[in-house]
Amino acid sequence: MTDQGEGRRVDMETIVSLCKRRGFVFPSAEIYGGFANTYDYGPLGVELRRQIRASWWKAMVQERDDVVGIEAAIITNPRVYIASGHLEHFTDPLVDCRNCKARFRADDLPGATVDGAGASMKVALPPDLTCPSCGTRGSFTEARQFNLMFETNVGPLRDESSVAYLRPETAQGMFVNFENVLNSTRRKLPFGIAQNGKSFRNEITPGNFIFRMLEFEQMEMEYFCYPERGRELYEYWREERMRWYVERLGIRPERLRFREHPPEALSHYSSGTTDVEYEFPFGWGELEGIAYRTDFDLRRHSEVSGRQLSYFDEERKEHIVPHVVEPAAGVDRIMAVLLLDAYDEEQDERGETRVVLRFKPDLAPVQVAILPLSRNERLVPTAREVWTRLRPRFRTQYDDAQSIGRRYRRQDEIGTPLCVTVDFQTIEEDQAVTIRDRDSMEQVRVGLEELTDRLEERLSAL
Amino acid sequence: MTDQGEGRRVDMETIVSLCKRRGFVFPSAEIYGGFANTYDYGPLGVELRRQIRASWWKAMVQERDDVVGIEAAIITNPRVYIASGHLEHFTDPLVDCRNCKARFRADDLPGATVDGAGASMKVALPPDLTCPSCGTRGSFTEARQFNLMFETNVGPLRDESSVAYLRPETAQGMFVNFENVLNSTRRKLPFGIAQNGKSFRNEITPGNFIFRMLEFEQMEMEYFCYPERGRELYEYWREERMRWYVERLGIRPERLRFREHPPEALSHYSSGTTDVEYEFPFGWGELEGIAYRTDFDLRRHSEVSGRQLSYFDEERKEHIVPHVVEPAAGVDRIMAVLLLDAYDEEQDERGETRVVLRFKPDLAPVQVAILPLSRNERLVPTAREVWTRLRPRFRTQYDDAQSIGRRYRRQDEIGTPLCVTVDFQTIEEDQAVTIRDRDSMEQVRVGLEELTDRLEERLSAL
Repeated sequence: MTDQGEGRRVDMETIVSLCKRRGFVFPSAEIYGGFANTYDYGPLGVELRRQIRASWWKAMVQERDDVVGIEAAIITNPRVYIASGHLEHFTDPLVDCRNCKARFRADDLPGATVDGAGASMKVALPPDLTCPSCGTRGSFTEARQFNLMFETNVGPLRDESSVAYLRPETAQGMFVNFENVLNSTRRKLPFGIAQNGKSFRNEITPGNFIFRMLEFEQMEMEYFCYPERGRELYEYWREERMRWYVERLGIRPERLRFREHPPEALSHYSSGTTDVEYEFPFGWGELEGIAYRTDFDLRRHSEVSGRQLSYFDEERKEHIVPHVVEPAAGVDRIMAVLLLDAYDEEQDERGETRVVLRFKPDLAPVQVAILPLSRNERLVPTAREVWTRLRPRFRTQYDDAQSIGRRYRRQDEIGTPLCVTVDFQTIEEDQAVTIRDRDSMEQVRVGLEELTDRLEERLSAL
Repeated sequence: MTDQGEGRRVDMETIVSLCKRRGFVFPSAEIYGGFANTYDYGPLGVELRRQIRASWWKAMVQERDDVVGIEAAIITNPRVYIASGHLEHFTDPLVDCRNCKARFRADDLPGATVDGAGASMKVALPPDLTCPSCGTRGSFTEARQFNLMFETNVGPLRDESSVAYLRPETAQGMFVNFENVLNSTRRKLPFGIAQNGKSFRNEITPGNFIFRMLEFEQMEMEYFCYPERGRELYEYWREERMRWYVERLGIRPERLRFREHPPEALSHYSSGTTDVEYEFPFGWGELEGIAYRTDFDLRRHSEVSGRQLSYFDEERKEHIVPHVVEPAAGVDRIMAVLLLDAYDEEQDERGETRVVLRFKPDLAPVQVAILPLSRNERLVPTAREVWTRLRPRFRTQYDDAQSIGRRYRRQDEIGTPLCVTVDFQTIEEDQAVTIRDRDSMEQVRVGLEELTDRLEERLSAL
């Protein structure tokens, strides 16, 4: 694994600015002034996201013998959300300022006292509370519950009968497809159904960059098991998921922790939830939730649909409603964490600052940069030839603009583990190139005929 | 490439039934009676979709030196769709039956005469037309234009100011991010921006399984070029995309064709569009559209946003508004085509029907199946050991239920190119297994120590 060194605590503004400048994350539709809590991902951002998804899928589906994937629709039959409890319970308590009409989450306001959770949460505000927006005192309405699902209408009519919802989580897709997956795969307990895709929540939020957005991308897995093994598997998945962050993503363990939800704060479906938290610049924040959902969802869908969702145990000769443990992670938050955690700064010998993103090499958006020493017409054809050869094997970038020193710095700043430099010695003397290491800045000379193998060796050794 | 043989024309019902039974495609939320024109993808469907996306990304982004990716939000600033023309033009002409209130696309009704296209399309119906739903004659209202974008409200207020749309295409994400991509990547013309993601259209449609759905997944690329090269690159991308279907996806060329849109049927933004069509069971249907969008979108976004979207040509010392060629494909339709095109039936020596999906091996949801000859306790541990060894390298499935003959048939029916069989000879004599080929049904004996290499050889040779 990469030697991460001490790392560096970086503020969110530095990351936001780097992300825009280098093409990781842009404000969505920025030419129109952007859009509340919505971001678009640029060329480097997309590559990083692709590696996050691939790593999760490999660990959670491909390498396992007990998990299969699905992809369910974002807009489906609204009865799903009657059964799941989202129509009733998935709400935030909101208050309006009578003076300026600004709207707030009541439980986020200073001095709010909260009783209960979910839809039955009661929030009391100090009677003389000042509106953070207009400064008026005591201007707030009573808190009322507001559902967080986005609504739309399917078909040309706009009435009650055509209302449908954008899914607020991918998890329900696994529950409503439980029977079809079971019948088509003939799985035995325990087994999991995994899904990666977008979800939507109409939240009033303080933002924090891509940490909390209106639309976000989930990686969720529902692990179905015998009821008596639920607790044990809840423990197992906590450990397993923490291990993934440390070993597969290379996140510094000292910035990760578990946080168990107290019983009174549990969601309506959960009998135990642990968050994996990361120490963000704004404090500890949820990176993943591991929830013991018991048999809540399958039972509810059985009740509302009238279809018995259960597992027939051939040895016990009985139908069982499995219990469920759910590890639910977010691509966007993981991406934020990878950027924050990889960020480092060093002073070089001339006192200049070198910014380095110390991504694990298999996650880096660009794995190998190909740099001719200059735009000299004798160097460029060879450099482009090298590039053409490497492209099918690695995520590459070609750069011939400005001095080689500045180009190394650019690659450091986007976390490219290896740079290949083509110089005059390459074409005149040795048919060899220089491989330069992002972390140590050491350079080694390698013959062109062995370049691909050496790059692969170094990338997997790092 | 696989020898596809003659292939077989298969009806849609056979594919729909195979898809549900084996876990490719399920009706969405089927336990609630499904949902109009919406499907969920099962374990095998997801793997097939992942290979389609990977093949497209490799050919369109990774292996090219002139294309980068982005991922834009599904719900963004609604002004994007004022500029793009979707708010004004993206409509279907609908009529109601005054008697039974059923609603139809006017231009789909028998005897409809159509004049113009898009929002200015005029449709006249025969005055005595019979309603296909209730049988009443002459009961139709005048046709009126209905916008196909799904609407929602962002934030707790539901008024004009909070309306936003689910994107009807991914393409606008590339146009509104044009400047940010250009600034962060310092690209020279020509270059492309690619995106893969969901889009949504509130259509009244005849369905045809996953061919036309309310939500669907696109793979679009906007290729920006000098205006004078537009026509030439439009030709280039037509050929390039057709080649991808034939060479990379292995689709039978005799079931593919180009269809050029006549000038009067072009979309509001296009000065030339060619569809790649496939011969579906219901007739020729669009698989991909290659559109010459000229500078329509960049100019419109410049006008509406007030931000000049252009490219500064350093040699000519002038600002240029690039022209755009767009190849736009759909994951769902490609998936349908792969299933239809791969489908084959053979009579075996006993007169029984063998169903085979002749997927190209790199696209098959399962590449290697591991089958112990029986559930014998001496065979199973070795078979599972083999499975564990192969899992990180290939997409695998383990199956020990029922006779080996039935299991071969099951694997044929899901298109698994290679089966590995563990038998008593394996554990008692030769530490070797049998590799069985899907297409030829030939079996060869291979030592365990060379199994991985031999499988890789055979998969890439097929």
